[in-house]
Amino acid sequence: MKAEIITIGDELLNGQVVDTNSAWIAKHLGALHIPVVHITSISDKERAIQQALRQAEARADVIMMTGGLGPTRDDVTKAAVAAYFSTTLVHDPAVLAHVKDIFQRSGRTNMPAINIGQAEVLANATVLFNDVGTAPGMAVERDGKYFAFLPGVPFEMKFLLENRVLPALRNTYKSEVFVYNSYVVTVGIGESYLAEQIAAIEDALPPFITLAYLPKIGLVRLRFTAEGTDMETLERETEAFKQQVVARVKDHVVAVDNRSFEEVLVQTFTETGVTLSTAESCTGGAISAQITAVPGASQMFQGAAVTYSNQSKIDVLGVSPDTLARYGAVSEPTGKEMAEGAKRVFHTDYAIATSGIAGPGGGTDTKAVGTVCIAVAGKSETLVKTFHFKNDRAINIERTVMAALTTLWKMFQEEQ
Amino acid sequence: MKAEIITIGDELLNGQVVDTNSAWIAKHLGALHIPVVHITSISDKERAIQQALRQAEARADVIMMTGGLGPTRDDVTKAAVAAYFSTTLVHDPAVLAHVKDIFQRSGRTNMPAINIGQAEVLANATVLFNDVGTAPGMAVERDGKYFAFLPGVPFEMKFLLENRVLPALRNTYKSEVFVYNSYVVTVGIGESYLAEQIAAIEDALPPFITLAYLPKIGLVRLRFTAEGTDMETLERETEAFKQQVVARVKDHVVAVDNRSFEEVLVQTFTETGVTLSTAESCTGGAISAQITAVPGASQMFQGAAVTYSNQSKIDVLGVSPDTLARYGAVSEPTGKEMAEGAKRVFHTDYAIATSGIAGPGGGTDTKAVGTVCIAVAGKSETLVKTFHFKNDRAINIERTVMAALTTLWKMFQEEQ
Repeated sequence: MKAEIITIGDELLNGQVVDTNSAWIAKHLGALHIPVVHITSISDKERAIQQALRQAEARADVIMMTGGLGPTRDDVTKAAVAAYFSTTLVHDPAVLAHVKDIFQRSGRTNMPAINIGQAEVLANATVLFNDVGTAPGMAVERDGKYFAFLPGVPFEMKFLLENRVLPALRNTYKSEVFVYNSYVVTVGIGESYLAEQIAAIEDALPPFITLAYLPKIGLVRLRFTAEGTDMETLERETEAFKQQVVARVKDHVVAVDNRSFEEVLVQTFTETGVTLSTAESCTGGAISAQITAVPGASQMFQGAAVTYSNQSKIDVLGVSPDTLARYGAVSEPTGKEMAEGAKRVFHTDYAIATSGIAGPGGGTDTKAVGTVCIAVAGKSETLVKTFHFKNDRAINIERTVMAALTTLWKMFQEEQ
Repeated sequence: MKAEIITIGDELLNGQVVDTNSAWIAKHLGALHIPVVHITSISDKERAIQQALRQAEARADVIMMTGGLGPTRDDVTKAAVAAYFSTTLVHDPAVLAHVKDIFQRSGRTNMPAINIGQAEVLANATVLFNDVGTAPGMAVERDGKYFAFLPGVPFEMKFLLENRVLPALRNTYKSEVFVYNSYVVTVGIGESYLAEQIAAIEDALPPFITLAYLPKIGLVRLRFTAEGTDMETLERETEAFKQQVVARVKDHVVAVDNRSFEEVLVQTFTETGVTLSTAESCTGGAISAQITAVPGASQMFQGAAVTYSNQSKIDVLGVSPDTLARYGAVSEPTGKEMAEGAKRVFHTDYAIATSGIAGPGGGTDTKAVGTVCIAVAGKSETLVKTFHFKNDRAINIERTVMAALTTLWKMFQEEQ
């Protein structure tokens, strides 16, 4: 049982839009043990759509297609798919009533006439009613293969997949081969150093277990993947090897599951009843935004002060004007006072401060673009470090976020 | 002249990692008038790599492959590609010296032995020296087709594409057919309403100009694409139609180019010498982080207070304890005081405040998950609105950010 994803849209091919749908779909199919073997992005053109369907049907049992179902003229998927299945489009009054209802419930009474076309569906399809948008999805089953056609707007696709497609697949399209994934998340050690540390363990892995390194800025995620017919064996064998890896590099391990670093921080701090705040200059609220994106963050996260201007560092965080004048905004003394200020203002156990030159402008002879001071105020001390990153703005911000969270995590571990 | 992108990695197929490389590559090839016609994500398996190369070579002239070039064992691209070209891997001393240099410059003297393998390169390739990582890229030209093999780590791929691949393509792989893209960005009007408004203009488009609707939460980007052999004609004709669209829906237009909404805000506020701050509760710093991600934001953006706790709303923003007790944190009076507090604390012309229940927890009988109050304090008044979103945490946060920025933009336009 294998799946293939086809995403449609010229905006994907010209780079305007990043295809986030595929990863989301793949994750959810994976949970049903239906591995995705191929993802293709193609143009809004009939021929491209039909060719992609033909190739996918030859390779996979479950085919998910997203995009091109909207009401505007650049949406050609329905016509292309009808031709592929040698069927027609029919007007479905139940779909029209549903679309009208969506407009009414959102308080817009005059539905533009263009939306009447949304009620045209494939004659051979089961309609997947869309409660969060006006484009219905459709499912077709043919020769033991399942095709779903979903809108490309992410939250509409997600609604239909979760509520219409996955329940249908869950019982019918079961796989005989199971895949067991297990994860270790490490910070503060580069990919090749990590590989060196665990080489002997990797050598001993049996052929049905593979190990993948998934490096990101400041973090390496290890994924063990085991394939076989007996889930219990897969799990037992994989976990035994994973324990060896964890024991070998334990100082760097932040999670032994597939959580994000922010999730680990939020959950650990919440469990231990510890609170956090941030004082952000060069990261501009990125640390706060990443932490508060985690559900339930409001227990451990008290607040952030994004103090871009010197005056706001003084007014909001109580940084001394003298320190700013003597050492500048990007300096260890200022960073220290920012962190301690946030800890005091927000009444938290820990506080992170960042001050740096993210670029591309703002560099000086003595402080180049990429110079960043990170301070973490903890229970008994405030740690301050200066980093010299050398990348573009977005990467410098991301590196700063990761370095700050890693520094916080280490201090927290030591103070426990 | 057409291009195809192949990204390699089981992490892309199982949904762990979103493929952001393809969009970036596509955008940069597009700028050279080399349109991408196909994007494929495949597994780290020799057979999948070779099959994808075969199909791509049949369809495209420029083939970009990313991923699987690292030093660890799960990286099989080099061996697979060598077999595809019926060539071998050779040890390149210049590459080894370069990799050693990268380790030395980063202050790590003991290069793990595993990295020696990085110096193995395709015998038929030009090495693309990588200054920001240890995996070299490679370029192969065969029968008038150009292949580039690049690491999957985004910033390494970007470095190699910008500094090694694009300069090589710029002169050699010129296209005869030009593509002219032009954009209009609208906010506050749904896709189908917009389509209805501009239907007559769309009807009159000549066959060589197409119009695409790219909806996101709270925003629709329109893309005109013209194809032909004479760039001047393409530009003149497209811009004439675009002017008609802009005139028709001008109240909703925020940009007539391909900038993000945040870029438009930062640049417009900077040009008019107007400043902004935010007071964020449910958005947790997301507005601030998105604005400060724009280079040069530090002139117009003074700071943000992320006040998750009631106490911090009182301490940092001066919200009255009485207002909080009487109306609650998620209320129009609290939102108003938060916005006015931020405007005062950060000394800005405008301030945005958000307070709401992003979910999944925190809803009550009277205030459901998705209830959000947005306030914008401007030069002469403070506007407060309550929204009722009904989605998951991430979407509720994104909707709130867009609604807040749209409210700010409209007030700014009116006060000019």
